[in-house]
Amino acid sequence: MVHITEIRVRYAETDRMQRVYHGSFVTYLEVARVECLRAAGWPYKELENSGILLPVKSIELDFVLPVEYDELIRIETRVLERPTARIRFSYRIFKETGELAVTASTDLVFVDGATGRPRRAPLGLIEALGL
Amino acid sequence: MVHITEIRVRYAETDRMQRVYHGSFVTYLEVARVECLRAAGWPYKELENSGILLPVKSIELDFVLPVEYDELIRIETRVLERPTARIRFSYRIFKETGELAVTASTDLVFVDGATGRPRRAPLGLIEALGL
Amino acid sequence: MVHITEIRVRYAETDRMQRVYHGSFVTYLEVARVECLRAAGWPYKELENSGILLPVKSIELDFVLPVEYDELIRIETRVLERPTARIRFSYRIFKETGELAVTASTDLVFVDGATGRPRRAPLGLIEALGL
Amino acid sequence: MVHITEIRVRYAETDRMQRVYHGSFVTYLEVARVECLRAAGWPYKELENSGILLPVKSIELDFVLPVEYDELIRIETRVLERPTARIRFSYRIFKETGELAVTASTDLVFVDGATGRPRRAPLGLIEALGL
Repeated sequence: MVHITEIRVRYAETDRMQRVYHGSFVTYLEVARVECLRAAGWPYKELENSGILLPVKSIELDFVLPVEYDELIRIETRVLERPTARIRFSYRIFKETGELAVTASTDLVFVDGATGRPRRAPLGLIEALGL
Repeated sequence: MVHITEIRVRYAETDRMQRVYHGSFVTYLEVARVECLRAAGWPYKELENSGILLPVKSIELDFVLPVEYDELIRIETRVLERPTARIRFSYRIFKETGELAVTASTDLVFVDGATGRPRRAPLGLIEALGL
Repeated sequence: MVHITEIRVRYAETDRMQRVYHGSFVTYLEVARVECLRAAGWPYKELENSGILLPVKSIELDFVLPVEYDELIRIETRVLERPTARIRFSYRIFKETGELAVTASTDLVFVDGATGRPRRAPLGLIEALGL
Repeated sequence: MVHITEIRVRYAETDRMQRVYHGSFVTYLEVARVECLRAAGWPYKELENSGILLPVKSIELDFVLPVEYDELIRIETRVLERPTARIRFSYRIFKETGELAVTASTDLVFVDGATGRPRRAPLGLIEALGL
């Protein structure tokens, strides 16, 4: 299963090299992941309000081609493995031309907000992701 | 009384126009204000931990000269009026060359974190600012 | 004439006070202004590529109500006065509930990219804005 | 050889989870790397002005412990391998308590600004890094 999100690059997200600042992509991944969860019926805000936090444990980013101001980028987001206490999202970001710009992955951990301790992914979420 | 803070411009804070993004200055003001309070013996973190929040109520920024990547800017911060339930900070940001780059002011409100309602500035803080 | 833009609040744009960081609104204004220009047939990127820069000269922001993570905010953008070498945008930002959250205005200056000097607003743009 | 940089966490860099937003660490790495190069006598700005760009090719971040607002973090930066057309920086970020918070690495590529093509690292820089 793949989820698609489109994001318009903001001026604030560019840098002196006249392209998107590499750190801005971390925020694009956040948006892609949150929209992927929303599409699966699990808005991240509700997850948090129900007492489950999902902090990021690790990130990997590979930059293939630069992205410019005002491009409408397309992000493909995938969850390929059944979540345990961790969930891994894989991403491919495409330029407006369709060329691959960035590949990335993020590992997040399900944490009980009350105790601060790791916990299993909610079953309903695992099912909603078809895993 | 004037407080001086120096900040080195980061690459992340520049934009496609090859200068500091105008929005980055809002963060510089935050740093200047926090260091001004720290110098007066009132670290903002401790204020918050003691149950007093200080959200920003209004901002004004005037841009005189652009600032570039890696400049070591100098910020003069002043509190000219005795704080009530509000406190106004006035700022002048100078380029590394000494030229004036930005003038600004921010109004913040003292809020009781427990009730969410406005409250008077702590007397000790007013005295520490010499007002 | 009023232009409407909707923006979904990102996690990256919140702060420790569990609401949108006040500086993030400056970027929301940028997005609103750029979309307003695009709707008028003058994408900012093309303006820049044609050699006209539009740096921000001043900003005013008044914070009325806090905005939270994941809210779908609505921004009304207006250009009320005929642009000269300056153009003033006025904004009202509304929470997802419909309540007014922020009022703001920004002054920008038309600059000739080649000479770095101020210039008149393009006539076509003035007409496109109906002014 | 290890280079040490200290950075004070800004309010703007925190998020709703009341800790540093994971994306903010990418900017901290940028600061650490730039200060490491400056200490070696190669300010990044001068490198860029001399026509050599150094875009980021890949990033890896592992989050061990959360970092909070106003902490004075310490970043250890190392270049362990002799740069070719690439240079790898390795980082360890420590909390104010001294505990390890984040480990990271970034690969950057030396690019000729005029042609946009990869090139070898300047010999003087390799020597300055003692490699």
